[in-house]
Formats: sequence, structure tokens, C-alpha cells
Amino acid sequence: MSPWRRRRGASSLDDSALDIVAGNGLIDRRALLGRGFAIAGAAGAAGMTAAAAEPLIDAPWSREVGAVTPPVQSPSPFEKDVVRALSNPNGEFRTSHARTPHQLLGGTVTPSRLHFTINHCGIPDIDPAQHKLVIHGLVRQPLEFTLETLSRYPLVTRMAFVECAGNSAGMFAKEPLQAPAGLLHGLVSNSEWTGVPLSVLLDEAGIDPAAKWLVAEGADAAMLDRSVPVKKAYDDALVAIYQNGEHLMPGNGYPMRLLLPGFQGNMNVKFLRRIKVINQPAYSYFETKNYSQILPGGKTWRFHFVMDVKSFITHPSFGLSLKEPGLYAISGIAYSGTGRISKVTVSADGGKSWGEAALQGPIHEKAFTRFVMPWRWDGQPAVLQSRAYDDGGNVQPLRAEFVAMRGEATKPVTTPLAFPNQHYNSITSWAVDSQGEIKHVYA
Amino acid sequence: MSPWRRRRGASSLDDSALDIVAGNGLIDRRALLGRGFAIAGAAGAAGMTAAAAEPLIDAPWSREVGAVTPPVQSPSPFEKDVVRALSNPNGEFRTSHARTPHQLLGGTVTPSRLHFTINHCGIPDIDPAQHKLVIHGLVRQPLEFTLETLSRYPLVTRMAFVECAGNSAGMFAKEPLQAPAGLLHGLVSNSEWTGVPLSVLLDEAGIDPAAKWLVAEGADAAMLDRSVPVKKAYDDALVAIYQNGEHLMPGNGYPMRLLLPGFQGNMNVKFLRRIKVINQPAYSYFETKNYSQILPGGKTWRFHFVMDVKSFITHPSFGLSLKEPGLYAISGIAYSGTGRISKVTVSADGGKSWGEAALQGPIHEKAFTRFVMPWRWDGQPAVLQSRAYDDGGNVQPLRAEFVAMRGEATKPVTTPLAFPNQHYNSITSWAVDSQGEIKHVYA
Repeated sequence: MSPWRRRRGASSLDDSALDIVAGNGLIDRRALLGRGFAIAGAAGAAGMTAAAAEPLIDAPWSREVGAVTPPVQSPSPFEKDVVRALSNPNGEFRTSHARTPHQLLGGTVTPSRLHFTINHCGIPDIDPAQHKLVIHGLVRQPLEFTLETLSRYPLVTRMAFVECAGNSAGMFAKEPLQAPAGLLHGLVSNSEWTGVPLSVLLDEAGIDPAAKWLVAEGADAAMLDRSVPVKKAYDDALVAIYQNGEHLMPGNGYPMRLLLPGFQGNMNVKFLRRIKVINQPAYSYFETKNYSQILPGGKTWRFHFVMDVKSFITHPSFGLSLKEPGLYAISGIAYSGTGRISKVTVSADGGKSWGEAALQGPIHEKAFTRFVMPWRWDGQPAVLQSRAYDDGGNVQPLRAEFVAMRGEATKPVTTPLAFPNQHYNSITSWAVDSQGEIKHVYA
Repeated sequence: MSPWRRRRGASSLDDSALDIVAGNGLIDRRALLGRGFAIAGAAGAAGMTAAAAEPLIDAPWSREVGAVTPPVQSPSPFEKDVVRALSNPNGEFRTSHARTPHQLLGGTVTPSRLHFTINHCGIPDIDPAQHKLVIHGLVRQPLEFTLETLSRYPLVTRMAFVECAGNSAGMFAKEPLQAPAGLLHGLVSNSEWTGVPLSVLLDEAGIDPAAKWLVAEGADAAMLDRSVPVKKAYDDALVAIYQNGEHLMPGNGYPMRLLLPGFQGNMNVKFLRRIKVINQPAYSYFETKNYSQILPGGKTWRFHFVMDVKSFITHPSFGLSLKEPGLYAISGIAYSGTGRISKVTVSADGGKSWGEAALQGPIHEKAFTRFVMPWRWDGQPAVLQSRAYDDGGNVQPLRAEFVAMRGEATKPVTTPLAFPNQHYNSITSWAVDSQGEIKHVYA
């Protein structure tokens, strides 16, 4: 019987029983799969053992009546630092970014209050009773829809990440920026979205069979518009009206947005007010200038819709620290705009050896997958990395591979708020020193 | 080719093409499955057709810079009525309930801010740096854990509903109470929970192989304690520290709670401060008095842990109304403490005929499953019902069947806030009149 199987009344394991699968203390993921979780004595370093452990029965909160139940609950005051990082806190007349603090979160759902937002012209306060979506252009009959009429359709519910094309842009810097995972990679979030398949609405309007493109436009003052292939509309596009069970957050497109699972964030047009069916791309400002990706040599891709396979470790990561040698879990997020995550490997020795992490199922297409790898830190320096694979055969590149393809920033980058380029997806490396402090490194 | 398949450039369907599967206008769920969604012309009544539909380009929010991006976002002011219903808004010295407004929500995740809460002694403000969980009793070595040490374990993520044993208790009333779905059935919610398998912690403490019970106790002033079979701990119990991606809400057990998927809510002990391993049930106040279910004849079950298979329609439902005849979606929530939902049937004629609803996948064990059934309302009276089946072979009873087994309230019940009895799970019936107004009926 494996020492990793569930054991009632088991005694402590000594370290020699650990099933090491890769260098520097990575432990067999099978410890996590199915129901054979028990890492028992092996995890003894994580549990605060105490021969005379006694419950704390005289804490103030055990002796006093607590607070009144509110109509809407909020996080504990002790969680006050779990907030998004803002690029424009005073609302100057420029784009405002708010980044999800992934290093402080767990699981796969991003709480809606912490979903990343990018707004080019502030956050509009839209009256859903007045807002309408119009579908027109190359259709038999133009149609208009309100939040109320969309609610009458059979709605579809699915998990999906949305990621800004500029997420992780700070990683184009020639030297690694010292910033937490949420500042480096916080322009991606994951929600349960509910809405009407766009194909249903296009069919109802009677789309011209020859039409190949749509242009989707938002109702805020930025009037962001993007061209979308009709093929995507008939694949998995939704007009979303719920986010994690409730109507959309204002910064995420209230009262309705386009959801194009796996496509770059700005194409998921928020505050959606029209979809015009056309016969060629619109070549709008936002697709020819703002969201173009510059290639080495100065050319750009005309379009690069799909967000590539990617992962990053959230625990441990920059800004957190290890207090003592012992057992830890290395945990993070993986996703791919192509499909499902098929595998995540983790290294604790800077890529010299890799072990396969446990994936938390069910694994959704084009959505976050949480990976977990048990790890025994021996108190010596270590470099932690994760590498994601998807079911389309794509592999997250090493940084050197990525830089060879896409280049680095040509000007100095001093802040993770900068956008020297887009569509960055290489692995991220966290170096743990012998004090347990964590730095961002290129390895 | 089925008229329900996706059709580019299709023309309107006339009503005779609708594939009716049950009385009073229920439409084949296959319209919803896979990618063959298009209900096209059939849904014409839902889309506001307009020969000259034009985008609204001069709305105030299209002309003005919007609001500054906040560190934490909140719902639109237009969503101010999407709140929980409170039983004790002034915080009098008694139990406080807050019910989830299911009739205003979509999808399957309950936003954490709207998760139901029941607190017997207010909501404690617990300092996670001081709080600890002790596992002791029949163990080789007592252990204590903090939020920080639990965070070092390999965590498990899963969807699960939590339901109060007293949810839907108003349905024991002899006459149907006129109240929205959230008041009748709002003591159940569904979240993504992340935590440490309890089996890992028990193995680490070295549980006595002969031990059959645990007693779990909360740290708030109510000191709620419940006996839990060790078998459940080794099945799927978690010590949960994240709810929908962030640390637990204060009303839901911050900083840590027991999660016993499918077991009645109060056993999922919040503010968990100790688990004592014992050799018989504790027969605590909360399990022998407060959460006992009275049977006809006056006896009670000793224990009734598992929440039975159940469903209710959220759209349309009491408090909503149908503005005109035409196409609608009948949608609701189904779940079972035994396992996965295998089927939900829907009736629009008070149970005379039933059609099978589409289920939104993936279908999680012991978690909400959203069902959807397209429906053409002809403007005549209708009685809408849903009936859930689970993969354990259980079927949600009709109300008459339920009452025959469990009886009705023996005293008048005038409010859905009352608790005449517990573990109510029959079908709920919404009657639509010819004006489109909706009442709660027993049918």
C-alpha cells in the first residue's frame, strides 16, 4: 500500500517515504488525486503540532454577540488589502486598469468585485431600461434587444476567462520586474458567464449567408469597436448578462457584453450596443492601432485573436514568503484560449527537472484550471516554474524561446503597468532564497 | 434538417414548426443542446423586432466620461434591489437569517455577497492571526492549525451547495404562501469552495481507527456544535478557507468552516475552532433540539444529514410577470445532497404532462445544476412545475406525496420566515394567469 493512500490511524511518515518526482523536493501529484489524499506525517511541517493543543475558548468573538446581518455581505475587515491594483486611481483622462490580486486568491472563480477591468473612458452608469442592443447590417431584418428581452431567451452558462492582450506585458522588460503575480499577470480573470448564444440572435435577424464579419461596438464614451469573424459567433460567442450569478459588474460591461471565449479581452465588447454584420473587417482604431502586436522587425500581426496557453504560480510568489523549511503546496492558474488545459508541469530547480501537477477538475474549456504540486522546501535556494499544455497541442514557451520569437522591449520598462508589447505567455520564474524571500527572475 | 439546427440566413419559422414535447407549449430541449441552439424565428417574440432598428448613439453614457475605477467594484446602482431578505434586520437577540434572492439571479454560482447566512449569535469579527482549529480527542497527537498553516496544504477546489435544513419550511403551510422564490427557497446557495480535505488533517493527527464520530464546534458566541460521522470526513469533507476565489465571507464562517457537501447546512460548522474525535454522537443541543425534524405522530428522526433531491423554478416565478404571450425560457435550479442531478422535467399544465429540460453542464456532484426549458406562452392560464431526479435514483416528490409522508404544519403559517418543520423538498408550482401575473399554488 502506498504511503500516500488514505490511512486511518497512521503514524508519521519519515521523509524517506516521500515520493519525489523531480528535483528539489517536488512530490508525486498522485498524493492529490482521487481520494488518496493523505499526506499525513509528510505534511507535519505544515500543521502546527502541539502535544497539548487546546481550543481557544475565550477569544473575544466567543464571548460577545456579533454584528447584525446586512442585506449584502462584505469581506472581513481583515481582508482589506485584498483589492485590485489601479493604474489610474485619480481617474485622469486616460485608460484605467484594475488588476486582479491573484497572489491573494484561491480556487478558480475570480470574485466579481476583483475581476480585472480596463476602461478607456471611465465606467459608464447605464440605465438597463434604456439601453438596447441592435443587430443590423447584412441581415434580413434588423432587431433590437434589451436586458429584459434577452432574459426571456434560453440562457447558456459556462466558465470562461477573459484576458487583456496586454496582460503580462511587463515581462517584455529586459530585467525581471519585482512585482506580485497580480501586478504582472492580473489582467486576466475567470467567471461563470450566462447569456444568449450570439448565433441565436444572428439567426433570428437572418444573417446574410455570405457575411464573414461582424463589428461589435460599446455604448460607453470610448465607443470601442472590434471586428469579429462570423465563424466565432457561431462557435461559442455569447451576449452575456450574468457574471458569477448576478448581472454584470459596471466595469465588466453592465448591462450586457460580448463574450468571445479565448479571444483577447477587448474583443469581448462591453456595454454592447450594436453588432453590425459586414463583409470585411472594419479595421477600427482599436484593432489597427491600440491592440496591435509589434513583431521584431517592426511589422505587426493584422489580427491575433486567440490568447495563448499560459500559466503562473500564485502560491508561493513574490510578496509572499516561506517562514521555515517544510511542506508546502505550489499552486497556480493555467488556461488557454484554444481549449482545455491538458497538463501542467512544475519545476523547483529552474527547469532542470519537471514533475506533473495535480489539476482541479472538472477542466473547463477556455477557463482557469487550478494546479497544485506538493513540495518539500529544504531551506535552500530554489527556482519555481510552471508550464502549461493544452489539448490543442500547444505548450507554454520558456522565456528564452518566447524572446527568440517575439523579442524584448526596446525601451527600458520600469513598471508592470507599462505596455511595451502584447500577447506575452512565457513561463514565470520565482526564486526562493535561503531566507524564504521570493524574487521574480528570468531563468 | 431539423428546424432547430443552426441555420445561417434562415427565414422565420411559423409556430407549426415548433417541436412541442409536453402540454401548454413546452418545446423540445434539443433546441438547447450541443451547438444546435437556434430557435430563430421561434424566439421572435422575445426579440424586439424593429424594421428600422437603429443603435442608440446619443445616450448620456455615450457622451460623458464615466466614473473612476475603484479598487473593489460593486454592482450597478440599478441593481440596488438585488439583496438578501432579512429575518432580523435590527439584530435583536435571536437567530438572523438572510435569504438569497434566486428570482433575480442567473447561472449556478451564488455571488458571495448574496450567499444565504444564518447566525445564531450575530456575525463574529474573527482575527485570523489569532484563530486556530484544534483537532483532538481520540487521536495520537492533537494538532492545531491556523489560516496560514492550512494555506500551505495542497488545497482542493469544488462546487457545492449548502442548504439549511429549514429551507422551504414555509411550504409546510396548509395554504400556499405568496412569496418570491428567494423567500421560499433562499436558504440554499452554491459556491466554489477551496480547502484542505479533512481526511488529511485527521490522518496527520493519527485518528484512532475505532473512532466513529467527530464533534465540530464553532468559535462564535453561539458555539454551535454538531456530530459528524468519521465516514463523511473520509468521503468528501473539507476545511474550507476560500469561497468563490476569496477568503470566506464573515457570515459564511471566516476564516475557516467545515464543508460537508450535501449535508444539512448547520453541520457545515462555521468559524471552525475544534474537531474532537469521539466514540459516539455528542447529542448536542443543535442536533437534538434545534435541527430535529418532527414526523407525523410526534416522533423525530435522530439524524437526517443528507439534503434531498430538489428543484424550483426561478424564471418566471412569483414577483416577476409575463408582459405578453410569446416565447420564454422556464429556468431554475436543481440539486441533490446524494450526488449529481440526472434529469429535470418541467410541466406547464400543472403536472398533466412533462418535458425534459436542458441541463447546463458540467454537472457537479452535490452542487446547483441550472435547467432550462423553452416555452411558448399562449396567454392562457398555466401552472409551471419542475421535478428533479438524481443519479442515486431519487425523485423529487409531488407536494401530495410529500405531505403524505411528512405532514403539514399543525399551526397556521403566515410567513415564509417561519420554521414549522424541516427537510422540505417537494415540487413548487407557479400559476400564471391570463394577465401574466404569477402566484404560488399547490397543484
